[in-house]
Amino acid sequence: MILELADIRIKPGQQAAFEAAVKHGIGTLVSTSPGFISYTMNHCIETPERYVLLLQWDTLEAHSVTFRESALFPQWRAIVGPFFAGPPVVEHFNRVG
Amino acid sequence: MILELADIRIKPGQQAAFEAAVKHGIGTLVSTSPGFISYTMNHCIETPERYVLLLQWDTLEAHSVTFRESALFPQWRAIVGPFFAGPPVVEHFNRVG
Repeated sequence: MILELADIRIKPGQQAAFEAAVKHGIGTLVSTSPGFISYTMNHCIETPERYVLLLQWDTLEAHSVTFRESALFPQWRAIVGPFFAGPPVVEHFNRVG
Repeated sequence: MILELADIRIKPGQQAAFEAAVKHGIGTLVSTSPGFISYTMNHCIETPERYVLLLQWDTLEAHSVTFRESALFPQWRAIVGPFFAGPPVVEHFNRVG
C-alpha cells in the first residue's frame, strides 16, 4: 500500500465549491479506479487556500499508471482543475512507522 | 482533532538513522504530551530525502502550545534536528472529507 500526497493551492474564496468538487470527483471517478483504497481531504488552518489530499492506493502503479493513463484522469482534472491556483505537488510515500 | 503535517528534508544517506530517531523521539517524548493521539511516518518514493510526519492531536493548542512550549520540544528537536537538511515545513489541518 502506498500514500499519494497531493498538495494543492486553490484560488481564494472557493473553498466550499472546491470541497464539493473533490467529494464528487473522488466519489464518482477516482474511487472507481482499480487499486484505490481510501482518501482524506485536509484543509490547512494557517493557509486557507491550501489543501492536502491523502489517498491510499494498493500500489504506486495503481495511481501513476492505471488511474493516470485512464479516461478517468482527465475527467477528474476537469472537475477540480479550475480551482487550482497552480500545479499541485504530488508525490508518493511508503509508510515506515 | 487536527492533523499536523511536518514536511522534512534530511541529509542524504541518513534514512535509517533518522527513522530510528523519529520512532525513539515520538515514542519517548512527543507521545507523552497531553493531547497527542497518533502518528505515521511516511518516506517519499520520488525524493528519498523527503519525509512527511502526520500527527493527530486533540486540538491545535495541544501541539502549538502545550507541546511546543514544554520541555519536551527542545528534547525532541535535539534528537531529530541533526538530520534536517533545512527547516521543516509544519502546518495544521482540519479534516473536511
